[in-house]
Amino acid sequence: MGTLPGFRQFFPQECALRDNIFDTWRRTAKAFAFQPYEAPTLEPLELYIEKSGQEVVDQLFCFQDKGGRAIALRPELTPSLAAMVGAKAAALKRPIKWFNVGECYRYERPQKGRLRAFYQFNADILGEAGPGADAELIALMITTFQNFGLTEQQVHIRLSDRTLWLQALSSWGVPQEQLFAVLNIIDKREREAAQQVIAKLEALHLEGEKLLQAIDHLSSLRSLQAIEAFLNTNKHHEPLISRLEDWKVLMAQLEAMELLPFITIDLGIVRGLAYYTGFVYEAFERSGQGRALAGGGRYDTLVEKLGGPQLPAAGFAMGDVTLQDCLQAHNCLPAQAPQAAVFIAITEESLRPQALRLTQQLRRHGLQVQGTLKPTSLNKQLEQAQHVGAHHALTVSPEGLVAKDLRNGHSEVVKEDVVVEWLRAKGHSCPLGSPFDSDLLKC
Amino acid sequence: MGTLPGFRQFFPQECALRDNIFDTWRRTAKAFAFQPYEAPTLEPLELYIEKSGQEVVDQLFCFQDKGGRAIALRPELTPSLAAMVGAKAAALKRPIKWFNVGECYRYERPQKGRLRAFYQFNADILGEAGPGADAELIALMITTFQNFGLTEQQVHIRLSDRTLWLQALSSWGVPQEQLFAVLNIIDKREREAAQQVIAKLEALHLEGEKLLQAIDHLSSLRSLQAIEAFLNTNKHHEPLISRLEDWKVLMAQLEAMELLPFITIDLGIVRGLAYYTGFVYEAFERSGQGRALAGGGRYDTLVEKLGGPQLPAAGFAMGDVTLQDCLQAHNCLPAQAPQAAVFIAITEESLRPQALRLTQQLRRHGLQVQGTLKPTSLNKQLEQAQHVGAHHALTVSPEGLVAKDLRNGHSEVVKEDVVVEWLRAKGHSCPLGSPFDSDLLKC
Repeated sequence: MGTLPGFRQFFPQECALRDNIFDTWRRTAKAFAFQPYEAPTLEPLELYIEKSGQEVVDQLFCFQDKGGRAIALRPELTPSLAAMVGAKAAALKRPIKWFNVGECYRYERPQKGRLRAFYQFNADILGEAGPGADAELIALMITTFQNFGLTEQQVHIRLSDRTLWLQALSSWGVPQEQLFAVLNIIDKREREAAQQVIAKLEALHLEGEKLLQAIDHLSSLRSLQAIEAFLNTNKHHEPLISRLEDWKVLMAQLEAMELLPFITIDLGIVRGLAYYTGFVYEAFERSGQGRALAGGGRYDTLVEKLGGPQLPAAGFAMGDVTLQDCLQAHNCLPAQAPQAAVFIAITEESLRPQALRLTQQLRRHGLQVQGTLKPTSLNKQLEQAQHVGAHHALTVSPEGLVAKDLRNGHSEVVKEDVVVEWLRAKGHSCPLGSPFDSDLLKC
Repeated sequence: MGTLPGFRQFFPQECALRDNIFDTWRRTAKAFAFQPYEAPTLEPLELYIEKSGQEVVDQLFCFQDKGGRAIALRPELTPSLAAMVGAKAAALKRPIKWFNVGECYRYERPQKGRLRAFYQFNADILGEAGPGADAELIALMITTFQNFGLTEQQVHIRLSDRTLWLQALSSWGVPQEQLFAVLNIIDKREREAAQQVIAKLEALHLEGEKLLQAIDHLSSLRSLQAIEAFLNTNKHHEPLISRLEDWKVLMAQLEAMELLPFITIDLGIVRGLAYYTGFVYEAFERSGQGRALAGGGRYDTLVEKLGGPQLPAAGFAMGDVTLQDCLQAHNCLPAQAPQAAVFIAITEESLRPQALRLTQQLRRHGLQVQGTLKPTSLNKQLEQAQHVGAHHALTVSPEGLVAKDLRNGHSEVVKEDVVVEWLRAKGHSCPLGSPFDSDLLKC
């Protein structure tokens, strides 16, 4: 009996890699003073209907529970987040800066970069409408890549704007109720031939050829100057001129943070989800290989749609599957930590109680200690010490405690009552503190 | 639209508490040189049928996916673990010592200490049949409690033995195929009246009254001496005499680790799951209040039953819900960390680019830094600095950078090019290293 298609088993080596990715996500979010939150893994189905868009709804793992409720495994975090913040908005200090590292589920065809269960890093800012929030989110996304060791030669952020798109589409005569359908067509434009796209637009009773030409022109803009020129030559876009101000603030802030080398203005990006409203962006490898590494944007109307107050919001998600492929391709996967730092051996079985006492003492200090669980020859024990990657072997013998540095073979006798200090001096960290510290921690 | 019954939303304060519990679980498991693993959240339904026992199967969240597969949300980790290890047993070095921190799901009536989604710490040793593995697992369980600040006055481990029970029941004439049904009755004995238990035993066509008397006697044993006496006066238990040796080794090892103060021998414990075979144990508050904090035992036949090789195995699980109630009752919940360590303020809006550059620099060092996202008066900014718990406010002004210690009000001017060193000297940690270190990390 194997696993279900699209689900993964993480053996220790893969799990350590995953945990390393999680650690970098969490540490970077905390450096940006984002706070952790968690939403339920299962939610009422209706949370996703019409909020996330048809593509997500088609891919839901959903079912009836034993109480007859229609429920779904979360395909993404944003609706849950918007519902949580909406329910307590009055009590939360603004700006609300929250992050999550958790698993999401989509019933898709498993393929490279896409699985049915995957982890996401979500970061969101609620309660701040200005481009300062967008800049901070983009900075967090880029800094996360940097903390993995990725550079602007390897990844970039394609930055776009739904506000521009929605206003432009309206001015081209696309009716309100078809805006999202057209955005969805634009979202897939890169992968489709012109004739296919025209047919789709005509199916919506729109002037396919003319509209596609306009779409392709706007999609092709790659600089603030080009956007400005487009707006100036299209006077009917007047409401959009003020939008230029937001663009200028955003770009100036990214420049101040020295992040412009990572940014590519690219109006070809519109994002697939229904709820986006303002700046949107996706991160890709520079090479153009692989799916998006991360994506996000502003969703100023979602909290209210889910029953909360009017609350501006923006955020992004970064998935583990594409990211790990990218880190591997660029040789950025971190080295594996050893299973144990210290191995405790015994020269004869009668010394086991003494070894166990020492083992327990060191473990209480947070040192990573391995011993044997049953009678084993000293040679086999020292083999195991090598196997678990220990730097030091401490051998309990009738003559006392012999400490051997397994990296250089050097041995010396160490008094048992100073062994913790001795190991510390050798560079072993004691993350749980000294016994004195842990007494202080006692309640 | 609220959450589903039995599911939790974690707002930042609750999420920080949860993460703190996870950290202690992980650090303690690593001190014992256990390696992390992860199993799928969804598994084929058949993985749990007949392996976990009827109680777990009755509580499964199970459904058909869009491909017609019968699938279940994992109610526990052990069957997945046994399947994973079984599939790669030949390639894994023994002893296999693995741990997991993850979410499980059971469709139960939500009540105090029981939810439908909960987190578990699972730790298991596979490939070692002797009591040394049981001793190490019990030590890990106890040390975990100690690392939370709980003492032997507050919690204890009720230690029992399925081997004893299975042999005794057989010798009392309980047929092989009814052993598990009777164990299930014994598991619930504490909460039921004698007449109820007798009726249940008689429904199995067993001599209810006589059998209950024998059961109650064995359940009442509370010491190694009492077990020894019981075995000696029941000569038909001869195969069990050798079992005494295992008990003696286990108790001697726990004594060497100075853990006996936490141990209560208590044959009233049999554990509810079908697959246990040897030593079993549950952790409770000394006061007797609340449900089990953790439980575990040996399951030497499960790996083989799931299609793997014959492989001895033992492990335990600790849940977050009862544990958190216990930590709260004993005032052992950790203090909340502040949202940010450093706040960066500006005296005028034109200095924002400079402040953003500094913010980004400090965040790249891993310092937890908050600033404002939009124009705000200096007073409001310093209020926000207090609100996020920052120890230092760095104010960018035309005269330079002013650093204020928000705990004592002391201010001084700091040169921007030494501000990282200055903050380090004030006790701020830079978990992401110096820029030099992070250059080294670059690939």
